[in-house]
Amino acid sequence: MAGNSFGQLFRITTFGESHGEAIGVIIDGCPAGLDVDLNYIQGELDKRKPGQSKITTQRKESDIVKILSGMFEGKTTGTPIAMIIPNEDQRSKDYGHNVDVFRPSHADYTYATKYGIRDHRGGGRSSARETAARVAAGALAKLLLKTQGIEIFAHVSSVGKINSPEIDINLSHINALINHRELNIVRCADLDTADKMIEFIDSIRKQGDTVGGKVSCHIIGAPVGLGDPVFDKLHADLGKAMLSINAVHGFEFGSGFSGSEMRGSEHNDIFIKNADGSVGTRTNFSGGIQGGISNGMPIEFKVAFKPVATIMHNQQTIDGEGNVAEITGKGRHDPCVVPRAVPIVEAMAALVLADHWLRNRNSKL
Amino acid sequence: MAGNSFGQLFRITTFGESHGEAIGVIIDGCPAGLDVDLNYIQGELDKRKPGQSKITTQRKESDIVKILSGMFEGKTTGTPIAMIIPNEDQRSKDYGHNVDVFRPSHADYTYATKYGIRDHRGGGRSSARETAARVAAGALAKLLLKTQGIEIFAHVSSVGKINSPEIDINLSHINALINHRELNIVRCADLDTADKMIEFIDSIRKQGDTVGGKVSCHIIGAPVGLGDPVFDKLHADLGKAMLSINAVHGFEFGSGFSGSEMRGSEHNDIFIKNADGSVGTRTNFSGGIQGGISNGMPIEFKVAFKPVATIMHNQQTIDGEGNVAEITGKGRHDPCVVPRAVPIVEAMAALVLADHWLRNRNSKL
Amino acid sequence: MAGNSFGQLFRITTFGESHGEAIGVIIDGCPAGLDVDLNYIQGELDKRKPGQSKITTQRKESDIVKILSGMFEGKTTGTPIAMIIPNEDQRSKDYGHNVDVFRPSHADYTYATKYGIRDHRGGGRSSARETAARVAAGALAKLLLKTQGIEIFAHVSSVGKINSPEIDINLSHINALINHRELNIVRCADLDTADKMIEFIDSIRKQGDTVGGKVSCHIIGAPVGLGDPVFDKLHADLGKAMLSINAVHGFEFGSGFSGSEMRGSEHNDIFIKNADGSVGTRTNFSGGIQGGISNGMPIEFKVAFKPVATIMHNQQTIDGEGNVAEITGKGRHDPCVVPRAVPIVEAMAALVLADHWLRNRNSKL
Amino acid sequence: MAGNSFGQLFRITTFGESHGEAIGVIIDGCPAGLDVDLNYIQGELDKRKPGQSKITTQRKESDIVKILSGMFEGKTTGTPIAMIIPNEDQRSKDYGHNVDVFRPSHADYTYATKYGIRDHRGGGRSSARETAARVAAGALAKLLLKTQGIEIFAHVSSVGKINSPEIDINLSHINALINHRELNIVRCADLDTADKMIEFIDSIRKQGDTVGGKVSCHIIGAPVGLGDPVFDKLHADLGKAMLSINAVHGFEFGSGFSGSEMRGSEHNDIFIKNADGSVGTRTNFSGGIQGGISNGMPIEFKVAFKPVATIMHNQQTIDGEGNVAEITGKGRHDPCVVPRAVPIVEAMAALVLADHWLRNRNSKL
Repeated sequence: MAGNSFGQLFRITTFGESHGEAIGVIIDGCPAGLDVDLNYIQGELDKRKPGQSKITTQRKESDIVKILSGMFEGKTTGTPIAMIIPNEDQRSKDYGHNVDVFRPSHADYTYATKYGIRDHRGGGRSSARETAARVAAGALAKLLLKTQGIEIFAHVSSVGKINSPEIDINLSHINALINHRELNIVRCADLDTADKMIEFIDSIRKQGDTVGGKVSCHIIGAPVGLGDPVFDKLHADLGKAMLSINAVHGFEFGSGFSGSEMRGSEHNDIFIKNADGSVGTRTNFSGGIQGGISNGMPIEFKVAFKPVATIMHNQQTIDGEGNVAEITGKGRHDPCVVPRAVPIVEAMAALVLADHWLRNRNSKL
Repeated sequence: MAGNSFGQLFRITTFGESHGEAIGVIIDGCPAGLDVDLNYIQGELDKRKPGQSKITTQRKESDIVKILSGMFEGKTTGTPIAMIIPNEDQRSKDYGHNVDVFRPSHADYTYATKYGIRDHRGGGRSSARETAARVAAGALAKLLLKTQGIEIFAHVSSVGKINSPEIDINLSHINALINHRELNIVRCADLDTADKMIEFIDSIRKQGDTVGGKVSCHIIGAPVGLGDPVFDKLHADLGKAMLSINAVHGFEFGSGFSGSEMRGSEHNDIFIKNADGSVGTRTNFSGGIQGGISNGMPIEFKVAFKPVATIMHNQQTIDGEGNVAEITGKGRHDPCVVPRAVPIVEAMAALVLADHWLRNRNSKL
Repeated sequence: MAGNSFGQLFRITTFGESHGEAIGVIIDGCPAGLDVDLNYIQGELDKRKPGQSKITTQRKESDIVKILSGMFEGKTTGTPIAMIIPNEDQRSKDYGHNVDVFRPSHADYTYATKYGIRDHRGGGRSSARETAARVAAGALAKLLLKTQGIEIFAHVSSVGKINSPEIDINLSHINALINHRELNIVRCADLDTADKMIEFIDSIRKQGDTVGGKVSCHIIGAPVGLGDPVFDKLHADLGKAMLSINAVHGFEFGSGFSGSEMRGSEHNDIFIKNADGSVGTRTNFSGGIQGGISNGMPIEFKVAFKPVATIMHNQQTIDGEGNVAEITGKGRHDPCVVPRAVPIVEAMAALVLADHWLRNRNSKL
Repeated sequence: MAGNSFGQLFRITTFGESHGEAIGVIIDGCPAGLDVDLNYIQGELDKRKPGQSKITTQRKESDIVKILSGMFEGKTTGTPIAMIIPNEDQRSKDYGHNVDVFRPSHADYTYATKYGIRDHRGGGRSSARETAARVAAGALAKLLLKTQGIEIFAHVSSVGKINSPEIDINLSHINALINHRELNIVRCADLDTADKMIEFIDSIRKQGDTVGGKVSCHIIGAPVGLGDPVFDKLHADLGKAMLSINAVHGFEFGSGFSGSEMRGSEHNDIFIKNADGSVGTRTNFSGGIQGGISNGMPIEFKVAFKPVATIMHNQQTIDGEGNVAEITGKGRHDPCVVPRAVPIVEAMAALVLADHWLRNRNSKL
């Protein structure tokens, strides 16, 4: 109710502030009997961790996850799985100068007003550090989905105005595709575009500035039937999941915003019978979802991230008493958030899919 | 859990199919003591009802709402408020031809597969008729918000590639603005643009085709503090609310997708002290929401609708056995859904705001 | 959140006041494909309806239930099932005298204080009339459970200090047992005891007084595994369900309160292997539930009802201003609530079991 | 959904098994600005911890609680509060003999069947060790309630057939009463009865046997208005809370089971006007709750605990294959659970009250 839980049947609750002792997550509702590969979970966290390349923040945190409960002899037991990630690099003195001023386009002012008290150390609960807990939980969700042949692939499709060409995706090469994406530090599947993105981010960084970007996500192998009618449409839950990620300002699936400019006669996805007898559609403007329910085609959506608010420039602002003040970004921040957002987008997508996979088990008698 | 409820503290549950006896909604959690203006609620429904102009469906339904419970002597009592809207014009024979074929880009195929049974009369539960129940509940939410000085204004900002200029909005003229918008059947606040939109939709209709569009929404007067950190960010809940509306394919708030192309130094909203001592920001790329919590500026977002899937052309499809079949749109459908979507967008926004207004009461001791 | 919903996956929300237009219920989460026998549902309601015998209230209401949604060609479709029961006999003038005084041991004072407004006609929302909606929903849950071989049997085991002997229950004769119970108006399975109970209630009624009693409930055929550890133990959810029924003051299962006087060496239920290879226990002090989870033995519990608060005597009380006043019971009330409580206890038990049956489907991968 | 969370607005989620690394709890929804006295929280845990006297288990665990998040400079911040209690004394070899046999009247058989996998070390998740997490969270709830003048007092009112006389309780002496109760190791407020109870438990222990008992709980200072109508009645939520505690077999409030033997004319609580102008009732058969809502009188209920299932005798049972086996209790167990149950009952009561106190803030506009 206070906004720290997500999902209904595969339900997570996260806790922790950026400069407290630890962050973590409880996963409640994971079925018993799932094999848990701890290395896989840690590997996902490593994709999100700070300090991984020259175009991310230079903060160093090893982000080692530890499972406290819910497992026995390598398998889930049906009881809640608590994961904890200690905070290591708590250089909170970098934030000492923010005690009394509100950083522009951050959550300082709104938190202080809403709660009447604010943990001013590095954003506290509003820090994107919280998403590490989501990545850990999402990795478990991915392991669950893999048992059902469902795979998730996201990559950086835009940085500023640099856009990647569309990529072709299918189940047979998804692991190759993930490896391919990891060949560059910006996590764009198209290597030529990646080079341009990296160069651009690096120049932005040198200017003490930041830039936004987009992440595209593809879910392959989902059966027909995931998602619920009316309010919990699959894309509505995916949209909420993505919009809940720090810095996200937009979500679209299938034809998205450009679909609003099209005609029905162009936009309709004609049903076809595949060679193997299964049903498909000729085009996929529906983004794999019709009436809120997956139709067996790839589920496709895009997420827009605003530029990071912390810049290394002087900016005017106000302080806690409402007086005009000046602020300069200090500390170590990302010039562009999307490379590290890729595993977060995948994690949130996995959480939504795992939840609806469980929910769908009860759609029929 | 089955997707028919929305909201936590101001919680609605809708029911009903397009061709059943009635649709309706239960509102649970509305505080006691709210004056209920039934005419206002009916007026909101009238904005959504079919058959209101030449550019909407010609189906006629009076959509008269009746309150069955939760009120006493004109006020809410704190108990659940049940509202019911009988289905009048149930010409289900128009749908007889759809029994065995799946309409392209509709929910027929996904429902049939998910549930193993399908009420094929006019979309059944997947029909946009369900949104009438949301409009009724949303009207009550609006009445609650009005007691707090919070007002909501949406209008059609795009039809196909025709875009309205930005409009200026403030509390002092919001009712005038609503009247102004209602001066044209497409519900665009800019009357010149409205004329072009109407002409375009009419031509599309004559071609038996359909077209998409966008609705822009503005929430004025919201206090600082609405929205919860992490998963239930105000814009995440607004996004889910909008994406749950039939035919919506995209949501963005504040700078939205274009924000992903900007730099931090352009995008940051500088805090200022207003003449009355309150805090504001010079720009509003944040769309009135920072860290998921309202910051006192106007809350602004856009919703993209795909073109209506039912067109008056022959289309190829498959039937229940997976065989190739042909389908022709019959019945009476909207050539463009956005004029009637305006009250739905407002209603869903009101439900989110009412819910978070109640939730925020408990943020402090 | 406002207390009008019950259950997680098989979830009901009730609405309506005793003297409004109608009461009703929405059932969300019933799987698609369940055959719905409307006569069975109406039959359950008939067991609860007022005016059925000389020892119940003489109010007459036919309590005809109507299903508005969620069904197609006799089967559930997976969408919400709305049921409505119009209020017929609204002799609210009987209650005119209660406008300004608070009836002792009723909910008048607490409602008026909590909400600042009170529908004083016959208890409004606090009237036991609300339980008719539960019986309708519970009947559907029973139909779901019957497809799984789960049957529920309750009967009046005590009226005042008159107690029925224990009865033997098994699946083979449960329908015979229900018929047997219906042979007397007090719904006690032991006919000799029933005669004494009826005579006693009748004498109480003639004195203008009321008396409490107990209902025993047995659930047969439940598989091992229903119920969740920790907070949602099967007996905890059953307990809440029963305590939510008007006038209930106590709940015990298995050995219950008398178990608190026993030693472990007497109380432990020794596991045995049945002739058919299944596992059972020699005794059933656990009441069919161990660690909060059903163990395959009959689930057994008892529910204690206080005497009805409305008596035909003069009683001292206070009015809305806190001044001393006098009140006399008028209207037509039950001298003893337990005969009509039997179908309510069964309905609530069915709702808990249906919910946990669905929930248990996801306990394993 | 999987049963590890409790409460709606003041919501806890617990995790951990008896022999894993740690147990813990996340509290979500505690308002910002509450002063947190860590010593008070630890003090409550110390009342529950094993090894505190000769009549409890001799296992030694210091049960030191650590807060990982949600606090800043001694106050709650409105973000989730994670508390962790490491498991120290994990002598799991005591449980090695239970790998393949099901202990009678324990949760071994039901867990193994429900989940297909079982952490057999000391009960795993079904161990009463989980309740330490509840006590920690409940202590925080008590601190919240104390800011509102609400106090909770429980004590052991029965051990086997030894019953304590009723005690008189009011706000002015509640702290004295708590100290008085702590003067004896059985936590009975009547010291003479306490002596008899201790002697009896000690004799039971020497026989390798166990015995049940009852805990009475009194909540003083609650305002009128806590609790919701219909399903979430205050006593229904209290009942569920209590029945969710390990070994509880019964719950009654106010007149309870004995009320079912009374007449309305005896049972009705006559309203009176107190000297200070407030409203009270002459008697309190309602147990401080009318129509599910607190009426300002003391809230009073009783909880029945069965005897501990682990006894130091040989018992027949079955093994994982359903074969007859024999089992002997080993390890260090409580001969009677009620002395250590007192802080658990208080904690669960506090969680229910804190939740409904928050919920009630939204009952009126």
